[in-house]
Amino acid sequence: MDPLVIFTPSGKRGHFAVGTPILTAARQLGVDLDSVCGGRGICSKCQITPSFGEFPKHGVKVADTALSEWNSVEERYDRVRGLKTGRRLGCQATVRTDVVIDVPPESQVHKQVVRKAAAERDITMDPATRLYYVEVAEPDMHVPTGDLERLKAALADQWEIDTDALRIDLNVLSTLQPALRKGDWAVTVALHKGNQDSGERILDVWPGYWEGRLYGLAIDLGSTTIAAHLCDLRNGQVVESAGVMNPQIRFGEDLMSRVSYAMMNPGGDKEMTAAVRAAINALAVEIAEAAAIEPRQIVETVFVCNPVMHHLLLGIDPVELGQAPFALATSDSLALDAIELDLNAMNNAAQVYILPCIAGHVGADAAAVALSEEPNKSEDLVLVVDVGTNAEILLGDKTRVLACSSPTGPAFEGAQISSGQRAAPGAIERVEIDPVTKEPRFKVIGSDFWSTEEGFAEATAVTGITGICGSGIIEAVAEMRAAGLVDASGLIGSAAQTGTERSLPEGRTHSYLLHDGSAEGGPVISVTQGDIRAIQLAKSALYAGARLLMDELETESVDRVVLAGAFGAHISPKHAMILGMIPDCPLDRVTSAGNAAGTGARIALCNRAARAEIEETVQQIHKVETAIEPRFQEHFVAANAMPHASAPFPELRKVVDLPDVAFNTGGDKAGGGRRRRRRG
Amino acid sequence: MDPLVIFTPSGKRGHFAVGTPILTAARQLGVDLDSVCGGRGICSKCQITPSFGEFPKHGVKVADTALSEWNSVEERYDRVRGLKTGRRLGCQATVRTDVVIDVPPESQVHKQVVRKAAAERDITMDPATRLYYVEVAEPDMHVPTGDLERLKAALADQWEIDTDALRIDLNVLSTLQPALRKGDWAVTVALHKGNQDSGERILDVWPGYWEGRLYGLAIDLGSTTIAAHLCDLRNGQVVESAGVMNPQIRFGEDLMSRVSYAMMNPGGDKEMTAAVRAAINALAVEIAEAAAIEPRQIVETVFVCNPVMHHLLLGIDPVELGQAPFALATSDSLALDAIELDLNAMNNAAQVYILPCIAGHVGADAAAVALSEEPNKSEDLVLVVDVGTNAEILLGDKTRVLACSSPTGPAFEGAQISSGQRAAPGAIERVEIDPVTKEPRFKVIGSDFWSTEEGFAEATAVTGITGICGSGIIEAVAEMRAAGLVDASGLIGSAAQTGTERSLPEGRTHSYLLHDGSAEGGPVISVTQGDIRAIQLAKSALYAGARLLMDELETESVDRVVLAGAFGAHISPKHAMILGMIPDCPLDRVTSAGNAAGTGARIALCNRAARAEIEETVQQIHKVETAIEPRFQEHFVAANAMPHASAPFPELRKVVDLPDVAFNTGGDKAGGGRRRRRRG
Repeated sequence: MDPLVIFTPSGKRGHFAVGTPILTAARQLGVDLDSVCGGRGICSKCQITPSFGEFPKHGVKVADTALSEWNSVEERYDRVRGLKTGRRLGCQATVRTDVVIDVPPESQVHKQVVRKAAAERDITMDPATRLYYVEVAEPDMHVPTGDLERLKAALADQWEIDTDALRIDLNVLSTLQPALRKGDWAVTVALHKGNQDSGERILDVWPGYWEGRLYGLAIDLGSTTIAAHLCDLRNGQVVESAGVMNPQIRFGEDLMSRVSYAMMNPGGDKEMTAAVRAAINALAVEIAEAAAIEPRQIVETVFVCNPVMHHLLLGIDPVELGQAPFALATSDSLALDAIELDLNAMNNAAQVYILPCIAGHVGADAAAVALSEEPNKSEDLVLVVDVGTNAEILLGDKTRVLACSSPTGPAFEGAQISSGQRAAPGAIERVEIDPVTKEPRFKVIGSDFWSTEEGFAEATAVTGITGICGSGIIEAVAEMRAAGLVDASGLIGSAAQTGTERSLPEGRTHSYLLHDGSAEGGPVISVTQGDIRAIQLAKSALYAGARLLMDELETESVDRVVLAGAFGAHISPKHAMILGMIPDCPLDRVTSAGNAAGTGARIALCNRAARAEIEETVQQIHKVETAIEPRFQEHFVAANAMPHASAPFPELRKVVDLPDVAFNTGGDKAGGGRRRRRRG
Repeated sequence: MDPLVIFTPSGKRGHFAVGTPILTAARQLGVDLDSVCGGRGICSKCQITPSFGEFPKHGVKVADTALSEWNSVEERYDRVRGLKTGRRLGCQATVRTDVVIDVPPESQVHKQVVRKAAAERDITMDPATRLYYVEVAEPDMHVPTGDLERLKAALADQWEIDTDALRIDLNVLSTLQPALRKGDWAVTVALHKGNQDSGERILDVWPGYWEGRLYGLAIDLGSTTIAAHLCDLRNGQVVESAGVMNPQIRFGEDLMSRVSYAMMNPGGDKEMTAAVRAAINALAVEIAEAAAIEPRQIVETVFVCNPVMHHLLLGIDPVELGQAPFALATSDSLALDAIELDLNAMNNAAQVYILPCIAGHVGADAAAVALSEEPNKSEDLVLVVDVGTNAEILLGDKTRVLACSSPTGPAFEGAQISSGQRAAPGAIERVEIDPVTKEPRFKVIGSDFWSTEEGFAEATAVTGITGICGSGIIEAVAEMRAAGLVDASGLIGSAAQTGTERSLPEGRTHSYLLHDGSAEGGPVISVTQGDIRAIQLAKSALYAGARLLMDELETESVDRVVLAGAFGAHISPKHAMILGMIPDCPLDRVTSAGNAAGTGARIALCNRAARAEIEETVQQIHKVETAIEPRFQEHFVAANAMPHASAPFPELRKVVDLPDVAFNTGGDKAGGGRRRRRRG
């Protein structure tokens, strides 16, 4: 009988004739063993480790002569680049006798990338674009097919690719003839396989065997910030991240202001489209430079965004999204050429995938959160809130998922806050206030020290203390409430009422001084009454959205809460609970998922099946429209207070011993302040 | 039993319940009855004519009450636009009793367009792009699909279109929402169905029912001239034709000079690509203006061209086509977006189809000739020559077809001729020379009179007599030979030798004065010795190519000859024979096919199946490479003379009584002339 070949860790096994290359055996058994060059000893991706000795578990004994001896290809490879001890090239080593072969993770194509922070989900690598090395027949005057046709035949022959519907851009086609001749009739092609409908497509061609790597961008296009992750399409690793403010802010801070801008200004939507596309191009340039790669190596981009950003990115006037029935121009996922979006800072033929929208107010970002957090697979009832300028809210379990969005405004992202800024080095991100002394301490992004600790000054010397970001303002307001600096209605007490000189009069209201950097030429950072009101509006909107979904499911409580958002990793569940951002839930069942929308984008970037999965999932999600639901307004008004000092909330009271204060500055004044705000 | 409905001319028949609309009956029987609005009484495309009385042939007697009475839709239509006597709207008229229904040609979708001149082939209308009127569901906040998704559902529902892979350009998508609202949730869409691989695609959207028509351009992109036909995609009619000189001529008159230009000048190919694309855009603008249509109505363009023009149009450096093995970058047909070729003078989403190339020297123009003339279906052995700057030559029958191309140069198109010009009003196109008086008479394009006839002066008053075009120079040289003005070697005799004062000395040679317009400020048009030499070189190349294919088939004669070319309709078979352009063949078996390549382009424009057919056919055509075949040179040299005065050619001698003359001006001089020419 032919020798037995057993692969680990898969456990797949089969008998193969003496002389069969290990790569061939792996392919026949469907073992996940990589190869770009198709077994020609060029790419070294198919490295394997043979094991020798007794394997009672497998029932074999492996002689140390079980594989062929090193051949010249392996010797040369080891000499030039070095082969780790014990490793062989799977395409060169052939079977002699029974053998056990281990496939190390880096030789697996579909290796899984475990997410770091909230490691609840693995990403199996199956990107839409991959590299193939191929050797092409030379032209023959008597069989006058074109170079492209011979390349297609070679791809079909050497890689079993269905090339019937294979397409190639003219720009790439114009480089094919020189590449084939320079590579001596061998090329490496970047081949894109789209969704089931569209055929394969050649995105790029390099002469001979190309050593480079392909990258993709996962972009979370928010109303306020644009965040991009550059991922290695071979292993899913995020090699670089970068973010910029969305330049559309100058046309309106929230979505509805931008829709209004488009309605009031002819061509206004085109202006906003051009602005956001230019920002994405700049971001792509920045991220490629930071990672020291060529823009040409970026062959894929996945976008997640809310519906208004979605339409503005696509160049569609968002006017219909500003009025009932909030009709999307298109709700399905989109596969596009990057160049259709004027994205020119990546490969000329780069492909774009945009996740589907759930509804006119619940966008591809919510779909991405669903892909990342999978409420549709949850055993218990989970509330997922993605906190941004618009909050995306998902509630459900494996039986049913509801979704809505809520217009929280940009306060949670540090905008419309007196000292607010984007989360960047120098921004205050953590705040604690001593309930007795009313003195604050804080941490800034880029330093591990609290402001009261030794070493803080040194650690922040370069960045300075520049402002307060979204998670910082949430903690500041919650801590102010917990320390009795703010009453249940949200009013900041005076120095006399609160007993701290940090309560400073500011017009007819007060503000709380967090940090005075004026002596060093830095800013004075305080929390004003306006800041509190902005946070109250934002948290009320968020809470009301969640309540609305709970009403729809006829439930008074949820089993767990997942906090997500561009700054989601940094939101403290405790402080979110004090603020009343989220409904009642055991505190230990509140987790942060980080940038779940961005994670969803990364998953869709790395795995084609995930695209099909989310396209299917969004069909099942039931959407609730907050804008026309009277109960949303009721919940919103009721949620304005910060109730927890009086709320029946034993668990929370254990965590934060809330004083029950009320500042008698007169309802007129507070009311007047609100009215002024509305006029402003 | 239900009433019997019989359709003519198809003869299809069936029984249908009383009240069934005629359109419904037609659809169920598969009768070719048009409808754009889907039976809503809007488009009036489904007009039919009921016949009344006895029909012994069909075995029925039709009462004049066989159909329902006119309804309000038909009355309104007749009032507003007028319905021809006897006509009904097939979607409104319903069955009452047995009836015979005639479907007039204009109500047939797949009506056949009979080609005029060489009416050997009908074109069945089945264009890739058609209009569909569709009524779309309004958006519903509670079922939040996008407008596009509801349009797709409506297309699937109302037109049974598979919309799974339906694509739409972002530019079109951005117009969808306003169009749906303006059209009160009805739109007319232009839907493109590509080859089997690619799905349907929405090219454009108009609000409500759109009355307009769609057009396509069939473009014959020659080395010297670019000819375009604007075709109505509903009926195949050519509504406008136009042509321009190929601006690439400034980079080189023939193909090899252009390849050389690209080799010698970095970026030279890009220059030539930009020039030809600009010329096509200008041509599209001109033709749309002449036809008084919007550029937006041009939704399809089909190109036929030789391989060098093919590559330069696509933006591919043609350098490989200038050297063995003459490798094409791509040989298969191409389906592209017009915008990929920078064609911006048509619909933004217009589609381009380029016929496949047969080989590195035998292009899509030869494929188009094959599609038009169908040598592969011929019972007898047919030689098809497409005369242009490069001659495409096909030889074969239904068992086997060979192809080659031959570098004739631009002389046949009037270039490199002293008084040569493009075929346009004012150009001499026909020439006769009296063998006794040696006096010429001629016709110019735009006039029906011979120059010796009364009325000629008036008829040419506007255009003038500006030069001589390709067919004119062929006839002039052949007539000069027949009249004894030129000897078998191609030498023009002196006045003394020829007996006419029209033989004028010109350096060491002579020229023949055809027309002296200098008195009226016009040009002096004569045939110079250089012109004769250019025609000799061109005709030798053409003849040698044909001979080479005959050698390959081991035949000494062909059964028939088809002369094609941009000016092919105007070539006189008699004169082509005198010149020795084509091999021996009975004169009555030589026919002119007109612009067969252009006809092939029109066929591919009007009929999707023809595209698949020619893609299949070119695979079967065996290509012979003239450039590396020593026998081609032998044939070429042997064919230089104009032999017919001495050739054993009884049929031809009957037609033209050729004098057998030879001018003793000395071989040195003639040879010197040739040598000079080569140095020039």
